[in-house]
Amino acid sequence: MIKDSNVLQNNNRLCYGMVGGGFGSFIGEVHCIAVRMNNNIDLVAGSFSSNYENSLKTGESLGLKKERIYKDYNEMAERESKREDGIDFVSIVTPNHLHYPVAKKFLENGINVVCEKPLVFEPQQAEELIKIAEEKDLILAVTYTYTGYPMVKEARELVKEGVIGKIRFVYGEYSQDWLASKVEEENKQASWRVDPRRAGKSNVVGDIGTHIENVVSFITGLRIKSLCANLDTFVEGRELDDNAEILLKFENNATGIFWCSQIAIGHDNDLKIRIYGDKGSVEWEQENPNQLKLTKLNGSTQIISRGRTELHPKAQIYSRLPSGHPEGYFEAMSNIYSSIYSVLLKKKAGEKIESKDFDFPTGKDGLNGVVFVNKCVESSKNFSSWVEL
Amino acid sequence: MIKDSNVLQNNNRLCYGMVGGGFGSFIGEVHCIAVRMNNNIDLVAGSFSSNYENSLKTGESLGLKKERIYKDYNEMAERESKREDGIDFVSIVTPNHLHYPVAKKFLENGINVVCEKPLVFEPQQAEELIKIAEEKDLILAVTYTYTGYPMVKEARELVKEGVIGKIRFVYGEYSQDWLASKVEEENKQASWRVDPRRAGKSNVVGDIGTHIENVVSFITGLRIKSLCANLDTFVEGRELDDNAEILLKFENNATGIFWCSQIAIGHDNDLKIRIYGDKGSVEWEQENPNQLKLTKLNGSTQIISRGRTELHPKAQIYSRLPSGHPEGYFEAMSNIYSSIYSVLLKKKAGEKIESKDFDFPTGKDGLNGVVFVNKCVESSKNFSSWVEL
Amino acid sequence: MIKDSNVLQNNNRLCYGMVGGGFGSFIGEVHCIAVRMNNNIDLVAGSFSSNYENSLKTGESLGLKKERIYKDYNEMAERESKREDGIDFVSIVTPNHLHYPVAKKFLENGINVVCEKPLVFEPQQAEELIKIAEEKDLILAVTYTYTGYPMVKEARELVKEGVIGKIRFVYGEYSQDWLASKVEEENKQASWRVDPRRAGKSNVVGDIGTHIENVVSFITGLRIKSLCANLDTFVEGRELDDNAEILLKFENNATGIFWCSQIAIGHDNDLKIRIYGDKGSVEWEQENPNQLKLTKLNGSTQIISRGRTELHPKAQIYSRLPSGHPEGYFEAMSNIYSSIYSVLLKKKAGEKIESKDFDFPTGKDGLNGVVFVNKCVESSKNFSSWVEL
Amino acid sequence: MIKDSNVLQNNNRLCYGMVGGGFGSFIGEVHCIAVRMNNNIDLVAGSFSSNYENSLKTGESLGLKKERIYKDYNEMAERESKREDGIDFVSIVTPNHLHYPVAKKFLENGINVVCEKPLVFEPQQAEELIKIAEEKDLILAVTYTYTGYPMVKEARELVKEGVIGKIRFVYGEYSQDWLASKVEEENKQASWRVDPRRAGKSNVVGDIGTHIENVVSFITGLRIKSLCANLDTFVEGRELDDNAEILLKFENNATGIFWCSQIAIGHDNDLKIRIYGDKGSVEWEQENPNQLKLTKLNGSTQIISRGRTELHPKAQIYSRLPSGHPEGYFEAMSNIYSSIYSVLLKKKAGEKIESKDFDFPTGKDGLNGVVFVNKCVESSKNFSSWVEL
Repeated sequence: MIKDSNVLQNNNRLCYGMVGGGFGSFIGEVHCIAVRMNNNIDLVAGSFSSNYENSLKTGESLGLKKERIYKDYNEMAERESKREDGIDFVSIVTPNHLHYPVAKKFLENGINVVCEKPLVFEPQQAEELIKIAEEKDLILAVTYTYTGYPMVKEARELVKEGVIGKIRFVYGEYSQDWLASKVEEENKQASWRVDPRRAGKSNVVGDIGTHIENVVSFITGLRIKSLCANLDTFVEGRELDDNAEILLKFENNATGIFWCSQIAIGHDNDLKIRIYGDKGSVEWEQENPNQLKLTKLNGSTQIISRGRTELHPKAQIYSRLPSGHPEGYFEAMSNIYSSIYSVLLKKKAGEKIESKDFDFPTGKDGLNGVVFVNKCVESSKNFSSWVEL
Repeated sequence: MIKDSNVLQNNNRLCYGMVGGGFGSFIGEVHCIAVRMNNNIDLVAGSFSSNYENSLKTGESLGLKKERIYKDYNEMAERESKREDGIDFVSIVTPNHLHYPVAKKFLENGINVVCEKPLVFEPQQAEELIKIAEEKDLILAVTYTYTGYPMVKEARELVKEGVIGKIRFVYGEYSQDWLASKVEEENKQASWRVDPRRAGKSNVVGDIGTHIENVVSFITGLRIKSLCANLDTFVEGRELDDNAEILLKFENNATGIFWCSQIAIGHDNDLKIRIYGDKGSVEWEQENPNQLKLTKLNGSTQIISRGRTELHPKAQIYSRLPSGHPEGYFEAMSNIYSSIYSVLLKKKAGEKIESKDFDFPTGKDGLNGVVFVNKCVESSKNFSSWVEL
Repeated sequence: MIKDSNVLQNNNRLCYGMVGGGFGSFIGEVHCIAVRMNNNIDLVAGSFSSNYENSLKTGESLGLKKERIYKDYNEMAERESKREDGIDFVSIVTPNHLHYPVAKKFLENGINVVCEKPLVFEPQQAEELIKIAEEKDLILAVTYTYTGYPMVKEARELVKEGVIGKIRFVYGEYSQDWLASKVEEENKQASWRVDPRRAGKSNVVGDIGTHIENVVSFITGLRIKSLCANLDTFVEGRELDDNAEILLKFENNATGIFWCSQIAIGHDNDLKIRIYGDKGSVEWEQENPNQLKLTKLNGSTQIISRGRTELHPKAQIYSRLPSGHPEGYFEAMSNIYSSIYSVLLKKKAGEKIESKDFDFPTGKDGLNGVVFVNKCVESSKNFSSWVEL
Repeated sequence: MIKDSNVLQNNNRLCYGMVGGGFGSFIGEVHCIAVRMNNNIDLVAGSFSSNYENSLKTGESLGLKKERIYKDYNEMAERESKREDGIDFVSIVTPNHLHYPVAKKFLENGINVVCEKPLVFEPQQAEELIKIAEEKDLILAVTYTYTGYPMVKEARELVKEGVIGKIRFVYGEYSQDWLASKVEEENKQASWRVDPRRAGKSNVVGDIGTHIENVVSFITGLRIKSLCANLDTFVEGRELDDNAEILLKFENNATGIFWCSQIAIGHDNDLKIRIYGDKGSVEWEQENPNQLKLTKLNGSTQIISRGRTELHPKAQIYSRLPSGHPEGYFEAMSNIYSSIYSVLLKKKAGEKIESKDFDFPTGKDGLNGVVFVNKCVESSKNFSSWVEL
């Protein structure tokens, strides 16, 4: 059953602006729809494209007033920060290379930031943003979508409760095949991802590998101690990597394998996470997100179905539909916004925010992601030797 | 990629009202969220509950003006029909027994109707509503959600194209287990469904069996000629059926089996449709809605994945996300509203509506559903003998 | 681990003969291999084909002495019954129409009979064979292979123990596609199956539908009270049925659906059995025979894996390999022979045989199968009306 | 349909002996059953256990004459080599540490050798055995069972034909959970595997990792150039590894990941191989061995089912049953013996053996396996640095 508290809220509506997300973009629309599902935040401002015409068209189609469709993000940050009815936060959905300057600008102007991953390219940049956010008491959220799935939350709760015991081994895979041949010339989504100037030092690790790192960290709470990575570029003439193999050691002596690929023919968006402990294991697959496999030592495998079995309360609140009514990607993103909304509302009400309120990825997760990507690149360049984190 | 045309539309916004859907209801929220995903229709009026307090609270939480939260549907139909900015259509999401009077009232007042299934209890009632809608040139849509899934549309196109040849046999199953024991005392969703005064003559055939009938009809275009049904009531003290087996003969000599159950322990919401022709077969499962299995005679089974393979244009327009990013139940419902929206917009613009524009279930489908349910009940009461349709 | 007791037995070897199974036959070889796996019964005599040349060639290739390769089954029965070292039993693997006369001949000559299904064409024939066997204190076994699978035994034990409670509904499906087009002209296996003179009154119900009936009866112990069947013949020019839908009522008020088809494109040998009780359900699929799904009321679905979890002792003894090492069709047949072997050995030793020793299908099961097939045909011919059993 | 040529062969029967495989062993029985399925080789001699009593009991139960049940393998090799009716080959199914001396002894006595994997512990030992076999013109086969599956053969043929193009990436996994806790004290199968004196330098890589290496090499034909391995020992007090992660580089610039584990709770015997090329991919899973997934670039995934689709002739000859009738582990082993049988028969007939006749793993594969295991151990001990092969 859809939780009333989750969905229906008229009082205390918030408003937000968007940077990026002009016609033809992918993730901007996802954010818009995800926010609308919750019906508690209104889109009121934006700078949707470096092309002002496109931006204007996009903004108007979204029902924005012309005066709040801005020429660029600088103008937007400055003007919105001065309005009494200014945006409560900005969502940054541009190509990767703009995340840093845009986030910095809005934070400096006192506006909360929700930013797509990877947060930035360099750890120092992430640290800088985190510092500004702390100093100004602002939210800095990073939209690693997959942690928004209820069954990923459930996996985290199972691990926390000790159901699978001490973690020994982690397997994470994120395989796609849309870059298996040289599509970057026709495909806008592909072209910026394989361009080091816009995507950063890595394509596949930065674009999808970092999701494995984030979901594993979210579920297990384990910090990576060292890793050894090999980044491949299989498609001729491509500048960045399109396949990567990573071995890991975690702080509690657990070990792990991550594999991310965009040339793995036969896979759509196949993020799979398996966590093995000394008392059991959990397994989750993004393409079948409403189920979780749980096996206890010497027991048979159980299929935990969202909605069917009562989930842990911290997972249950993110479930909107009865069992067997599939929830998907939009809902996962929407759940991240639900959580951001709650924290912003508390803030506005002057309530104290505790760390347990942050049930969404923050600047710290963004920083971890940046470090992870950079260390993978460093290891790979250094003949795939082990590097410490 | 999300279709701009599908999602972003500011000009030509429509508005609607809702009857039913007060706090604690299930399907009302689904309609609200589905409509919001498309961002082209605003909820502006409602009579959400027979309890006015609940209605008021619901309406206010949804941002409605108090003056448009009505005491009852009669008042709502009358007043809205007189407003210049009156609703473009009403969505009826009440328990089944109210569908008929509410739909009739709104149609009579010149307001387009979108009604939950089953449309009504008696064929004559359905025919009456259809007649009024025709005479007044109004839309009468019935929200059989499952035909909104892109892969169900794809299955229809494959059949139309002759890919599986002449249809021989149809297998439809809709199994759930939430009524496997006597939960109706505590569970509001259960209590009205097993109450003949509110649910009609059948629980399981009316509530879910009719979805099998509708999806099969949608994909194959085949009319049922005769059927033989046995309706079971397994849970003691229950008045209506909770499991049903149905044999069918179709107009082209195809045969079929439908099984619907709410006592099938282990099943959540397991709607499965398989269509066998003389050249191939298609298979679709609602709990894994982004895929379709296609097998051609003497060939290997292919897994058609939404987004991966280019779908037929009439299915493709309903796909919002790239392959492997799961779309679910809300999107299916939202797609039905997309299609209703397009037709209403054409109507408003004075354009001619052709039958091919109606890519959503209409009163005719509602009538078929009512006839189907009634014939199943008739057969079962008559010692499960064969009855003609 | 392979059970020593099951596999290794040198003392007390038995010997058998075969009628049918000449070069080009299918099921004869299956019996030979199944018997060899157990290494406790030797093939020593045979009449493998109505064509003596073929018979001779087959027998010699199997290492038989020429004197024990017979011209016809009459000669074989008579001579073997007179030998001191005569066969302990005969396995009959001919086309269906020969089962009756061959079985009768051997029983009359005092030789135990293992016969392929369907046992015979008419209930009176089955009753006659049962009577002769009883009078002569002989074994009459019928090789319904699928009850030999360890996980089918496990399902039976789970039901017996009451784990799924009182049975409410049974779903059985056996779908294949090898007769989806007119292959009978080139395919020897097909040609006799669709020929009423050799196959009997029904093709699809007799050939595979009867397996559903047998496995369901084996697992549930329920007797069919009445049924309503529709037999289709979809391929033009075919004399017998190739698809059938059957509704059933069982003695305890459980109901059921059986569907069997050889025109269901996309299915290889897809026997699926699901049993729903008031406390749980079990589900087994022949193409994935080493697993069983078990769901208890309000619980999550468990995947019971052969070898992984300790099975009930009566299932465990039929498991030869550790978990995850697939056992298949040969092993299922071999398990039936294991059980026949044990009973014959006891008999030979003059021990009393109890009914619980018969962990293989007997003449009684064969009779049930014949009645089932005949009643399906009768119902279908009578406009698919209900018939009592 | 079972191939007559494959199964029925009386002329030209061969005979063999066995070292190891006494009561309580696992793999010995598998070999016995596998050989019996083919009905062309007889077990006539053996030294089944270091405990002569056990050996005697085992041999007698298998029908051997007492004079050919030997006290030890030395005696057996010597006496059998002198008999006119001596064994055509010996199957060595002892714990690992005995493979080398036993194989050497039999080869030196002019007897063909079929040996369980891993062939030996040291590359020099493997090279020595290969050399003796060559000099004496003897067969040295290594029973890597999984290459015997028809669908593994089919994968090899698909790769050979270029269906998936140039190979880019290989993923191999072999996960089990039977050693997830300290079972070695009660479990005989476990105790020798984790004992370096009997198992060698590695448990998990030697026992199961080497199967990944062998199947990958079999399907792709690619040689490993270098690898980087980390061997974990998670269960306290265990001497050898129970989980291992391995990165690989192959000769054609393909890369790969192998993961093998015996502590992966929830996995039975989960060998999975996926091969990605620039034109397509194939995927095979040992627990569902009758199917293969094939995806061509931009196409939908196809499920190739053994028996359903006509396989390549070199795979087809190993298929015994029609589609959908599961074949399993015994058949895979049996297929290896089929192939060994054919070569031995040719040899006996004085025919020239070509390298393409060897459709079973040989000493060369055994050597590769030993090198692979040793290099993994070397890398892991050297802080998981990269080592060349």
